Parts: sequence; C-alpha cells; structure tokens
Amino acid sequence: MQFIKHLNWRYATKAMNGKAVPQDKIDTILESVILAPTSSGLQPFNVLVVKGKELKEKIRAVANDQTVVTDCSHLLIFAAWDNYTTDRINRVFENMQEKRGFNERWDGYRKYIIDLYVNRPAEENFVHTAKQAYIGFGFAIAAAATLEVDATPIEGFDPAKLDELLGLREKRLRSVTLLPLGYRDTQNDWIADLPKVRMPKEEFIIELD
Amino acid sequence: MQFIKHLNWRYATKAMNGKAVPQDKIDTILESVILAPTSSGLQPFNVLVVKGKELKEKIRAVANDQTVVTDCSHLLIFAAWDNYTTDRINRVFENMQEKRGFNERWDGYRKYIIDLYVNRPAEENFVHTAKQAYIGFGFAIAAAATLEVDATPIEGFDPAKLDELLGLREKRLRSVTLLPLGYRDTQNDWIADLPKVRMPKEEFIIELD
Repeated sequence: MQFIKHLNWRYATKAMNGKAVPQDKIDTILESVILAPTSSGLQPFNVLVVKGKELKEKIRAVANDQTVVTDCSHLLIFAAWDNYTTDRINRVFENMQEKRGFNERWDGYRKYIIDLYVNRPAEENFVHTAKQAYIGFGFAIAAAATLEVDATPIEGFDPAKLDELLGLREKRLRSVTLLPLGYRDTQNDWIADLPKVRMPKEEFIIELD
Repeated sequence: MQFIKHLNWRYATKAMNGKAVPQDKIDTILESVILAPTSSGLQPFNVLVVKGKELKEKIRAVANDQTVVTDCSHLLIFAAWDNYTTDRINRVFENMQEKRGFNERWDGYRKYIIDLYVNRPAEENFVHTAKQAYIGFGFAIAAAATLEVDATPIEGFDPAKLDELLGLREKRLRSVTLLPLGYRDTQNDWIADLPKVRMPKEEFIIELD
C-alpha cells in the first residue's frame, strides 16, 4: 500500500541538503494540517512558516544547535493557544455559521464549550490545545512523506526562549513542536542508512474481546 | 493530490452502519500507528483493538452513550504509558540493539533519557506520553481516510472509568482517545452532508521572515 510505503520511507532526518521544497508541496502539507481533525473543530493552534536564513539561525540557537533547523527549506512551528477564551471560541463558531448557517444545536454547543473550557485552569487548557496541535503535526509528517519531502519532528528546543524570540506569548500562543521540511543529505546523516526500528507488533497492539 | 482528496472525504462520522472493515485494512491502519514517529522512538503507548459487541456496549456506557462506539466495526483505544520507567526505556533500547547492534552513542542516550525522564513527576510524563499517542492517533485517522474507512476521533469519554473497565491501570496504561472504525451511515448521520468547515488559511498559517 502506497501510504505505508511512504511511511517506511520517511525517517527523522538529521541532515538536510538545503534544497528548496517547491511551494505547491509546502501548500499541500499546510493544507493537510488545516484538514486535521481537532476537538470540537476548534483548531486551537497556529502553524508558523519560516524560510529566511537569519531567523532560522536564531531559532537554531534555542533548538540545541540542530543543523537541520538551518539546513531545511521551510521550518514549520506548531504553536498552540495558551488558553481557551470566549472570543476565540466565538470566532470559530462565527466562521462555522458563515459556512453552515445558524443552527440551534451548534449554538447550544458553543455555550456549553465556553462554560466548560473558559473556567478551567490555563495550564490544563494548554495541554489540551497542544494535543490538538500534535494531531496536525502528525498529519504534516504523513503528508510530507506522501510527497517524498523529508521532515524532522522536533520537541528538543527551549519553548520559552522560542516564544520570546517570536513574540508568541503576546499572540497568546506557546510553541509546541518544530518540523523542518527539506531533503535528506544522506552522506552527512549518520542515521540515514540505519534500519527503521519499531517494537514488535505483538507488544504494541493488544486485542481485547 | 490523492492524500488531500482523502482528507477532504473524511469527517468525524457520528453514525456507522455496522458493516465489517476487512482485516487487511485494519492491519494497515495499525501498521501506520506503529510507523508513527515518537519522541526518542519510545512508542510510549499501546493500541487496544475491540471487536466484540458486549465489550463495546460496556465502553459505550462510559463514552457518553455514543452509538458509533457500538456500531463501528473495530474500536481502537489509544492508551499511553502512565509514566516512564527504567524498565520500559531499557526494553525499547534492547529492541533497538537487536535490530541495529550495540552503539555507544545510543547507549549514552539511553542513560541520558532514563536520568531525565524517570525523575520527573508521573503527571508530566503522562502528558508527554499522551502527546506521542496523539501523533499515532493522527496517523491512524489519515491512514483510515486513504483506505476510505470511516473513523471517529473521540476524546469524549470517562478515562478513569474506561481504565477501570479494561484494567488499564494495572498495565500501567491510561486511556487517551478512542477511534471507532467502520462505514458511515449517511441516512442516520445528521452531520454527513454538512460542508467541512475550517478557519480561513490566512488566520491559521502565519508566515514569518
């Protein structure tokens, strides 16, 4: 199956060759993130796209000096809402109404969610928004693989410093993951030729009946 | 592009028709989860697969009585490690060594991770393991779409009650998400014909330079 073939082809690329990924492929990867499902359809995160060399260098400095951050073509930053707010939730439902018309059921649901989320601690909400970002992150990784674009899922960076560098807290966002996109530099990537390793299926999948 | 076409085709199916999904498609979806990347390759979650009617009914009772839980063909349960432990991390690296041979660099990394993770609070570690499960969850949703199998991403259930029902805490697991797999019952799904709604791209994607 083609999808599985592509997932076997991909790996967490540690060295990229600097070649540019065509804009249409970047757009497809971003489109896949937009199409990812999220809890109640709130899409509680943003994706930031960095192309410029200078900014990538500053980001690399707060990302354990990983060379892939500067040698990639495009760097995606997944940044989740720092909290749920009434305004943010209303904006999502307003957008939904524009496309689907007004519906009592949805409007009741809007109020229910506001009651439920806005009174919860910010930290609990951020864990929830970050998880939604991880679904989109997964979609971007899978989409890149289907396009034979390499990607490096990265959690290893200093979120507080990156947030400061990019002024994310003022936007009420918090960085969650990075995803450099580009093309593998097999000669300089010590990991490129290693066999993919996963736990045996019988240890990972549990059938219940 | 075929992948995007499939992502547009999918939706969070609210009613399924009970038709069985062929085993080879289930296996492909599970394979995609196994192939999903995780932090340090730890794969800190399991996927439980439920086919039996009786067990599905018990699960539905702790999942807001959602009919899709019983009307699906297979119900996947994503359950993350409750914590990182030395044994769990060692098992992953032992498996890696079997496939890649011994490597000083990896073994140093193993020790580094054990030092870092095992001393952190369990709750912090569970947030981290759950996030990895969400990547796999995303892969399963995308894989199902490419096979034209419907799926319903579900967070709306009582994790503590589900953990008790399935004895997950004894296995040191905690349920995170559900994913019923099956086929849409368009006549009984009020949401089936609604247009897909997403926030405008210009509000979701932020270009930085």
